[in-house]
Amino acid sequence: MSKPIQAINRYKADLRELNFLLFEQFKVNELLGKAPFEAWGEDEMKTSLVECYRWAREVIGPLNAIGDTQGCRLEAGHVTTPSGFKAAWKSLYESGWKSIAVDQEFGGAGSPHSLQVLIEEIISGANTAFSMYPGLAHGASEVIESFGTHDQKQLYCTRMYSGAWGGTMCLTEPHAGSDVGAARTSAKKNADGSYSITGTKIFISGGEHDLADNIVHLVLARTEGAPAGTKGLTLFIVPKLRASQDGTVGESNDVSCGAIEHKMGINGNATCVLNFGENGKCVGWPVGGDAKLNQGMSQMFKMMNGARIGVGVQGISVASSAFLNALEYAKDRKQGASIEHWKDATAPRARIIEHADVRRMLLDMKSRVEGIRALAVKLTNHQDCVRALTGKDDTLAAYHQGQVDLLVPLVKAYGSDQAFRVCETAIQTFLGDIGKFVAANSGHAKLGAAAKRLGAAQEALGASTMKLLTWFQTGNMTLVPLYANRFLEMMSETSVAWMLLEGAVIADAKLATLPATEPDHAFYSGKVAAALYFARTVLPGVEHKAAAMGDEDRSPIDLAEAGFATV
Amino acid sequence: MSKPIQAINRYKADLRELNFLLFEQFKVNELLGKAPFEAWGEDEMKTSLVECYRWAREVIGPLNAIGDTQGCRLEAGHVTTPSGFKAAWKSLYESGWKSIAVDQEFGGAGSPHSLQVLIEEIISGANTAFSMYPGLAHGASEVIESFGTHDQKQLYCTRMYSGAWGGTMCLTEPHAGSDVGAARTSAKKNADGSYSITGTKIFISGGEHDLADNIVHLVLARTEGAPAGTKGLTLFIVPKLRASQDGTVGESNDVSCGAIEHKMGINGNATCVLNFGENGKCVGWPVGGDAKLNQGMSQMFKMMNGARIGVGVQGISVASSAFLNALEYAKDRKQGASIEHWKDATAPRARIIEHADVRRMLLDMKSRVEGIRALAVKLTNHQDCVRALTGKDDTLAAYHQGQVDLLVPLVKAYGSDQAFRVCETAIQTFLGDIGKFVAANSGHAKLGAAAKRLGAAQEALGASTMKLLTWFQTGNMTLVPLYANRFLEMMSETSVAWMLLEGAVIADAKLATLPATEPDHAFYSGKVAAALYFARTVLPGVEHKAAAMGDEDRSPIDLAEAGFATV
Repeated sequence: MSKPIQAINRYKADLRELNFLLFEQFKVNELLGKAPFEAWGEDEMKTSLVECYRWAREVIGPLNAIGDTQGCRLEAGHVTTPSGFKAAWKSLYESGWKSIAVDQEFGGAGSPHSLQVLIEEIISGANTAFSMYPGLAHGASEVIESFGTHDQKQLYCTRMYSGAWGGTMCLTEPHAGSDVGAARTSAKKNADGSYSITGTKIFISGGEHDLADNIVHLVLARTEGAPAGTKGLTLFIVPKLRASQDGTVGESNDVSCGAIEHKMGINGNATCVLNFGENGKCVGWPVGGDAKLNQGMSQMFKMMNGARIGVGVQGISVASSAFLNALEYAKDRKQGASIEHWKDATAPRARIIEHADVRRMLLDMKSRVEGIRALAVKLTNHQDCVRALTGKDDTLAAYHQGQVDLLVPLVKAYGSDQAFRVCETAIQTFLGDIGKFVAANSGHAKLGAAAKRLGAAQEALGASTMKLLTWFQTGNMTLVPLYANRFLEMMSETSVAWMLLEGAVIADAKLATLPATEPDHAFYSGKVAAALYFARTVLPGVEHKAAAMGDEDRSPIDLAEAGFATV
Repeated sequence: MSKPIQAINRYKADLRELNFLLFEQFKVNELLGKAPFEAWGEDEMKTSLVECYRWAREVIGPLNAIGDTQGCRLEAGHVTTPSGFKAAWKSLYESGWKSIAVDQEFGGAGSPHSLQVLIEEIISGANTAFSMYPGLAHGASEVIESFGTHDQKQLYCTRMYSGAWGGTMCLTEPHAGSDVGAARTSAKKNADGSYSITGTKIFISGGEHDLADNIVHLVLARTEGAPAGTKGLTLFIVPKLRASQDGTVGESNDVSCGAIEHKMGINGNATCVLNFGENGKCVGWPVGGDAKLNQGMSQMFKMMNGARIGVGVQGISVASSAFLNALEYAKDRKQGASIEHWKDATAPRARIIEHADVRRMLLDMKSRVEGIRALAVKLTNHQDCVRALTGKDDTLAAYHQGQVDLLVPLVKAYGSDQAFRVCETAIQTFLGDIGKFVAANSGHAKLGAAAKRLGAAQEALGASTMKLLTWFQTGNMTLVPLYANRFLEMMSETSVAWMLLEGAVIADAKLATLPATEPDHAFYSGKVAAALYFARTVLPGVEHKAAAMGDEDRSPIDLAEAGFATV
């Protein structure tokens, strides 16, 4: 008898795997129990994961279906979120999950970011639509913490980190799509130092809701006489309700939600059209004050970086739960007969997991989810190292910062001029670390052949990096964006393979000491299998992409427009 | 000013490309004007495409949005289709598009199948949800034409080919999913030779509707005492309304629609749960009579083959129109600045098509759509050759039949035992034809290097074919399904590249005789560029997949179940 689908399709996380990453692969312990993580030990971190997982499954998991069915309701410019979202928001902030890594100055628990990224994965995986409301509030607060004036930090950060107030990021305009430089929202200076904001922004996630007492919008706008394009944009703090410096909330700031847009799968999150200053009464202040006019783009990228990591974690969380649910289903459901009985039409039916191609797909999902998650934890671990080492060993801190810069996928979002810097950093650090790993493990009894494949991929990646640098230096600029996405893919595949093999080497050493009856024996075997599969299946593709780059195929550029089609 | 989105997002086809395939690449003319295609010449075929394209954009294209918004309505077991579908069904059959290749004995126009497949692409591309109703009626009629008794053909075929009656295929049952052998629908013989049918089928596309006077369901069911599994299934003709041999429609046959299921993107097509014999009054007859009991699976595969080609054509039609719409959009919309001005934030904005990576994506879409369509036309051209040659040159007809068998992707649907036959056929014909093409063109000035890559892919594919055969012969059966999907991918990529290069050689020869100002100059250049791009980008991957097969990686099979995850 098959299990009911509700039981099967529930959020799942593999906590054993999360603990492996933190304490066996990245050895986070080395940072714990001393500044700036005095309050944190291995037990505190493990308990946080267990408790947050329980909370997520009990409190926000059940709201997934409700949020999707009810959606958000817009009346007279105000949005009502689905039943239960308001109580869940309160519970999230009371339990402290959202501010776990926030600095104690702003009311947080100051945990390592490597813990926070896994907490974020659990929250997002249990209910993506819900998680976007606090996610955006948090990101907006981080921008104010980084670039705001003293008064701005005091007024906004504690309130936004604690969930008293929400927050958003207002980037896109109706006529401009993602061409941010074409933004027309205007900011006109008033006598009191504030600016009057006028314009419309679209696709604003969580742009209006009833979860918090106020919402702080970060809005890209152009002051009078500012340069055209992205160089003339300033980031403004524009609250939904005006507030005095002591946090008392007052009258409306003339920000209204004109419509809710539909985004598939996240019905519970209000994606809004926001109108600023329809009645001429909307005011805002530049993040960091007038000294920071026209620096909106670089400030926004701070938030975009966080948002990009967030979107990556969102992807991991959904893929991971999908993998674990597929696994449970495959262990339970019977279909078809085993290939061993291929000539016998009356053979008994087999469970899906007994079919080889199903196992391959499961192992494919496992290796990708675990490899990409390892990269995300590696990134945050480097962030924690920067935080721990700055002022103590600035050279080492700078190395870790280089790793952080490399691991956030800059090229696409920052524009092609940044690809150059990624290449330089890659040549200086990244690739060398892989080389060391390959040298240390290419004689490994079980994983040596896979390590050698990693080495071959690393060399191919090195050659492609040189190609990109050469194109830059010789002014062969059109080839750079033609290959940038494929280059990023190669970097991502190579580094995922590295993370998986690094984990597999650790797992294989543990296997040697464990009897086969121990539960961890199967766990470690799974890590070795995932790494072997990925190295054999995906890594050869890196070499093939590098070879294609070496060819410098220009056919997409050289073809005349009329040659694409005859309509 | 950008164009309104409605104008951009309209069904589009590139008729120049369709004519190239028919008359330049596959030289369909050689079959025209003589038996069995006496009535067909190049002009008739070209005019049909022009007229059908006009009809599809005017009559069924505008019903797409209506069908999606309204969906289908179920009341008291009967389904009402969206506004306009009934008139469109009538117009489709009156204009003759659906029966264009049907034998004249059954009221059709007897055209080559190579024309029909392109007509199907246009109908499906303009309105997929609508096109499924006549598509299934057509497929069901083909099964009766192939396997039915004389009386069954007389009663059903002309009516189903002409749209007087509809038709469906009833395969899946609620407890069994796609595990057809577990079907429980029962058939009990009555004194008058009919069978009483009892059971429930799900996911029946077009299972109930108001477009035709009757609907003929083909239902897989098990007679009393039949063997277990797929060997005990018989295919029954089960009309919605009972009919006498002269076609007069009478009382209800106790078939009712219990619910409409939701399938994303084809809201206008009623996907039904059908209940047969809830009141004990549903009767059916075996396709081909009692002599064909327990042969339901092989009869059903006839329809499945047609359905598979149909689904392939559906995919091509949607992808092709998406490509042509994306192209129009890219030529129109401006965003970002050219990479040439990467240091200048105030640079003028460029049209999207001026960005190299956008061009790459467009060329990628173009090459895949055109390559896969060429394979579909090649398949139908071989079918037409079989039809023209049978009885005249049976050896040559058998060669063409082998090509047909190979090109319908058998392995996945027929089960792994058929993979063996595909491999044998591949070794005997397929691969040799590619070898001849490579030998003839590897010295080609512009395309020689790409042809050599095709040769390398062909050799890699040959080695993989031998691997599969060896696994079969040595009883290493678990490896076969582990690699079957990847093997199919390699076959598909290699043959798509072959089709593109074959077209490119023809196009390049024409280019030599055309001044650059001729409109066809850009068209032929596009074909050369698509082939070069595909050969350089996709073909090297075939060799890498073959190398991975050579490794015989067994990690997905060897890993214990508990090793996949710890939950």
